[in-house]
Amino acid sequence: MAATRQLQPGADRYFGPGRDRARVARKLFESVVALPLVCPHTHVDANMFSVSNYSFGTPAALFIVPDHYVYRMLYSQGVPMQELGVPERTEGTESGRRDDRRIWQTFAEQFHLFRGTPTGQWIGYALREVFGVEEKLNGHSAQQIYDHISAALMRPEFQPRALYEKFNIEVLCTTDAATDSLEHHAAIAASDWGQAVRPTFRPDSVVNLETPGWREHVARLSAATGIDIVGYESLILALEDRRTFFRQLGATATDHACATAFTAELSMADAEAIVRRALKNELETDDATRFTGHMLIEMARMSREDGLVMQLHVGALRDHNSLVFDRFGRDKGADIPIAGEYTRNLRPLLNKHGNDPRLTLVLFTLDESTHGRELAPLAGHYPALKLGAPWWFFDSAGGVYRYLDCVVGIAGLYNTAGFNDDARTFCSIPARHDMWRRVTANWLAGLVLTDQAEWDEAVEMMRDMAYGLAKATYRL
Amino acid sequence: MAATRQLQPGADRYFGPGRDRARVARKLFESVVALPLVCPHTHVDANMFSVSNYSFGTPAALFIVPDHYVYRMLYSQGVPMQELGVPERTEGTESGRRDDRRIWQTFAEQFHLFRGTPTGQWIGYALREVFGVEEKLNGHSAQQIYDHISAALMRPEFQPRALYEKFNIEVLCTTDAATDSLEHHAAIAASDWGQAVRPTFRPDSVVNLETPGWREHVARLSAATGIDIVGYESLILALEDRRTFFRQLGATATDHACATAFTAELSMADAEAIVRRALKNELETDDATRFTGHMLIEMARMSREDGLVMQLHVGALRDHNSLVFDRFGRDKGADIPIAGEYTRNLRPLLNKHGNDPRLTLVLFTLDESTHGRELAPLAGHYPALKLGAPWWFFDSAGGVYRYLDCVVGIAGLYNTAGFNDDARTFCSIPARHDMWRRVTANWLAGLVLTDQAEWDEAVEMMRDMAYGLAKATYRL
Amino acid sequence: MAATRQLQPGADRYFGPGRDRARVARKLFESVVALPLVCPHTHVDANMFSVSNYSFGTPAALFIVPDHYVYRMLYSQGVPMQELGVPERTEGTESGRRDDRRIWQTFAEQFHLFRGTPTGQWIGYALREVFGVEEKLNGHSAQQIYDHISAALMRPEFQPRALYEKFNIEVLCTTDAATDSLEHHAAIAASDWGQAVRPTFRPDSVVNLETPGWREHVARLSAATGIDIVGYESLILALEDRRTFFRQLGATATDHACATAFTAELSMADAEAIVRRALKNELETDDATRFTGHMLIEMARMSREDGLVMQLHVGALRDHNSLVFDRFGRDKGADIPIAGEYTRNLRPLLNKHGNDPRLTLVLFTLDESTHGRELAPLAGHYPALKLGAPWWFFDSAGGVYRYLDCVVGIAGLYNTAGFNDDARTFCSIPARHDMWRRVTANWLAGLVLTDQAEWDEAVEMMRDMAYGLAKATYRL
Repeated sequence: MAATRQLQPGADRYFGPGRDRARVARKLFESVVALPLVCPHTHVDANMFSVSNYSFGTPAALFIVPDHYVYRMLYSQGVPMQELGVPERTEGTESGRRDDRRIWQTFAEQFHLFRGTPTGQWIGYALREVFGVEEKLNGHSAQQIYDHISAALMRPEFQPRALYEKFNIEVLCTTDAATDSLEHHAAIAASDWGQAVRPTFRPDSVVNLETPGWREHVARLSAATGIDIVGYESLILALEDRRTFFRQLGATATDHACATAFTAELSMADAEAIVRRALKNELETDDATRFTGHMLIEMARMSREDGLVMQLHVGALRDHNSLVFDRFGRDKGADIPIAGEYTRNLRPLLNKHGNDPRLTLVLFTLDESTHGRELAPLAGHYPALKLGAPWWFFDSAGGVYRYLDCVVGIAGLYNTAGFNDDARTFCSIPARHDMWRRVTANWLAGLVLTDQAEWDEAVEMMRDMAYGLAKATYRL
Repeated sequence: MAATRQLQPGADRYFGPGRDRARVARKLFESVVALPLVCPHTHVDANMFSVSNYSFGTPAALFIVPDHYVYRMLYSQGVPMQELGVPERTEGTESGRRDDRRIWQTFAEQFHLFRGTPTGQWIGYALREVFGVEEKLNGHSAQQIYDHISAALMRPEFQPRALYEKFNIEVLCTTDAATDSLEHHAAIAASDWGQAVRPTFRPDSVVNLETPGWREHVARLSAATGIDIVGYESLILALEDRRTFFRQLGATATDHACATAFTAELSMADAEAIVRRALKNELETDDATRFTGHMLIEMARMSREDGLVMQLHVGALRDHNSLVFDRFGRDKGADIPIAGEYTRNLRPLLNKHGNDPRLTLVLFTLDESTHGRELAPLAGHYPALKLGAPWWFFDSAGGVYRYLDCVVGIAGLYNTAGFNDDARTFCSIPARHDMWRRVTANWLAGLVLTDQAEWDEAVEMMRDMAYGLAKATYRL
Repeated sequence: MAATRQLQPGADRYFGPGRDRARVARKLFESVVALPLVCPHTHVDANMFSVSNYSFGTPAALFIVPDHYVYRMLYSQGVPMQELGVPERTEGTESGRRDDRRIWQTFAEQFHLFRGTPTGQWIGYALREVFGVEEKLNGHSAQQIYDHISAALMRPEFQPRALYEKFNIEVLCTTDAATDSLEHHAAIAASDWGQAVRPTFRPDSVVNLETPGWREHVARLSAATGIDIVGYESLILALEDRRTFFRQLGATATDHACATAFTAELSMADAEAIVRRALKNELETDDATRFTGHMLIEMARMSREDGLVMQLHVGALRDHNSLVFDRFGRDKGADIPIAGEYTRNLRPLLNKHGNDPRLTLVLFTLDESTHGRELAPLAGHYPALKLGAPWWFFDSAGGVYRYLDCVVGIAGLYNTAGFNDDARTFCSIPARHDMWRRVTANWLAGLVLTDQAEWDEAVEMMRDMAYGLAKATYRL
């Protein structure tokens, strides 16, 4: 069916349905296909760009083991985590005992589970476009494709820096703990690569008092800054010091993750008392919630002053599955969204800092119903606010259409932050940008064909969505 | 307009818009058109298959009086319930006083109200495809069509078993109270029909302590099992006994309806105390809520052990309209959805039983915003969880598109339970499957035409959605 | 691109995508293009129709200064309110200091912000179709277009009554405080214009006890009615008196705005006590909430008796931005929606009055997720209930599609109230109706092309959506 329509497989992916729409979408997509990729928010490891002879490991280590998008699907269909290489907490990460060929085989046999999912489409893209795999992945082809990828990964053109160039990346931001030494970023900056890889300041583990091992994280922060953190005031000083350090190594943004968007300011005395209780491991009920709500406002204050763009990712209940958490630890595909509230929760922060255009606050939600009801109306008013791209469970073609259909009419395109790929595996980056660009091209083609946008306007919007908005929002 | 596009009326129903899409959708639909219908969840009366010479009654008794989808629409436009044959509580069901021709006339005159609704489309299908009515239903044609249907219903080919064969049904599950004698199912099983009609175990009336007449229901359960229910422990034994009885008569599933998805385990002592209070009619505040929340977990435990698939229908505030309830009783079209919460509410149940693939829990919601936010993320992780098809107010073409667009990208197709028709009237079954198959064909055509699925993948997905997923999920 | 498809710019706006769909949509649209506009809910000033030689002022005064849809977008991108002519509270409205040419220039330079928004499309329509502007609005063309509009506004054919005729308006309802003298309506009624412009009774400022200056508003109500308001009973008498006065001047509807849909009846004693406390400025916590919840039921009672259609606009948290409120006052684009709940909140009102078809209650929501979950199920049952058109943040093409796709399948078309434009500026009225008619035509074309509606049915539905439903619902 598809074969009769085109010569190159995938050349018209996401375009249409309908020939008119596909034709216009293709033309718009072609107008940005050569633009470099701006990646202001990823979970890629900077290490891969600072060492020489980096190894991605096996195909299973590249595609499956580190990606909870992938193994959560297999787990949901009854495949035990252990068979997917997810290390157990108790026995340590003894990868030597892992049979990566077998993991790959299991994955390949179940690859049909990913039909119609973005994960399936990204992996399909990476196999085809990055590794030149021509066969379909399934139980029969699994080992042959494994060999093919393994061989490719040995070649110099599959070293991270070579791929970075091949992918046409302009800038890539990692996500780093406030206490991180940023040694890899420093090494990269000292090489001829300059600021191609920038850190992002993520202080959750020292700001969220309920983080396991919070006092150890704070001790590390004291060590990193030379500031003896004995209470609220010294904690603030240490955070400010650390932000300066991140900025010196090229950071332009911070990142904060919260279950809710609750914000409310504490008195200095209350803030001081809470931190001192936390340091003595004597937290009272609500201390952590109240402190997080206060610190978001304080972080907005710092961003207003030092210019770091503030990202806020809201809405996941972490580690929903106790059994999985106890055996395998955090971030194992068992984070589940909850209903969101922003209008009342963000009011204290926005009333204090939201009118200042020096602040840029980028909001991400896991509750799509808040896009039209709260986030777009807020972003269409407050100078400081921008809407982040559809995030996590909503990073599909359908999620992008729902987001654009809803958000642009209310807040306008120019109150969105453009695209960020939120990539967990480096090789998925081009696939994610390809999907975003194609889907937005197809969405714009709808506007053009229904006379809601003129051609020259659509071309400008296309460029802004593919490139300009992310670059401008994140000050890159 | 439509007439210029095709020869047979309705042959391209739900396909498109656009010729390319209609062509691909038709081809996909044709690939499953001969597959039998799997009906794992209906509200059809088993009686009709066990007696000989069953009578559906008049056309009004067939289409209007038992279907709250139909008379709620007419009531909303000012037609009194009495004029639609809905029996009043106080005067009993004296159908002799009912003027069915007049009810039919009223309905026919108002049939335009159903434009664009699934109810209107199902009735249109049944008239055309099941009864061969060629005219449009309206005030002029009403009596002639009434005569036509009445005459058809007298013929042997309109006996339920003949229609069952004509509709190409493979298996049909009814929904039955825990205390039901299942005499009709036994009679069918004893005939040459084997397990063509299976019961489903629905214990709401003995599990929900606030059910009117709960103590009478429990007394009936004691009588049916020979177990003297004096407290929690004996109630559990009786329920387990009854599940075994249902399984012996072919049941493969249970069904549970709740206003919310609240689950939380009670201590044995608390459970015992609550049941004893209920038996003495001395319920305390929250007893019923706490007990329902506990029993859902207990029912999941039983399903894990005996293999009955557990269905959970959540989200209706029952009998919203007091005036209608007082005069006409329950289930009269006045049940209204409320906002849902699943992430926190289901956590106790899922933490206890959700990791066991022996359990299959099928979830249905009346709050569409939870599909993407909570249900699909949960189903994409827990091995026990599957998502039910769009239910009740969302069983329209639009509802199906919104469901698929949202759910498949997050949880994958294979964490859905396929289709169930939830039919209230037997003759609506083929119409409902026809709509589902056509709409899913058209949705898949969108994937094919945008190169998101290859043709052979789409054909497999089509078969799974039309037939395979329901059969596998419900272990039929 | 678009230019190759048609001759007149905008002739196929909103039709498609796809030629088949555009063709059917155009034909449906053409079938209603000559029908007059029914405008049952606007925020237009009646004054403009009662005086001779009315002046709309400058283009900035016409399009920007009074329209918070417009200046909120510019404010969100960092343009100060002062540069947009929004008067500050403290210095009074000294428009003499305003540089309207400069405001227009700023707006024109930022007009790209409105791409893909209904505001941008309405303004584009008004410039092109009402004022005959052929150039695109931008920084270069700004002053020339300013001159062009200014010159047009001097001509007699741009007097409000001439535009009313040109726009082919059949009836237009304004929104007026309960205490309004309605002198302009009386003057219009006394002229040869009869009831072309009707008032709407909006008692929020005397019913919501938290309205700033509530006691002054009540004093004005006493003065207007000659009833000395000393408590609840006299307040009710005054409101009933005022409703009679509004009806005498042609009103057919009331309008009520609330943050939530909470309703609950108070005892006479409680209601009396609350009003007396309010008159002494001694409100207790919850008094205002409880009283609003009671008065909605009381207003439904009055509507049931006097036949005024009751409109309920629910869901905005007003004046979210304290800084903007303190400097510029209310209604400055900083109202933000909150999550809605209707099923439980409206139950007391609907149980008391919802079964009476003499009452018409039209509901509007700012939480789209309640359309399918609560509002359409309620409207598909209660005879008194109708669903209002997508409102405020949802008045875009996308908002209309989401509304129709969701609502019609559940409640049917005939439980909707058709369209109202909610116009803030008189010249946007034809643009808003044009969008609604085109988008609904395109939606109906989808039904026709997928064989879900026959052509003659679609033509009737088109007429009802464009004209008949609004006229019938509002008893015009």
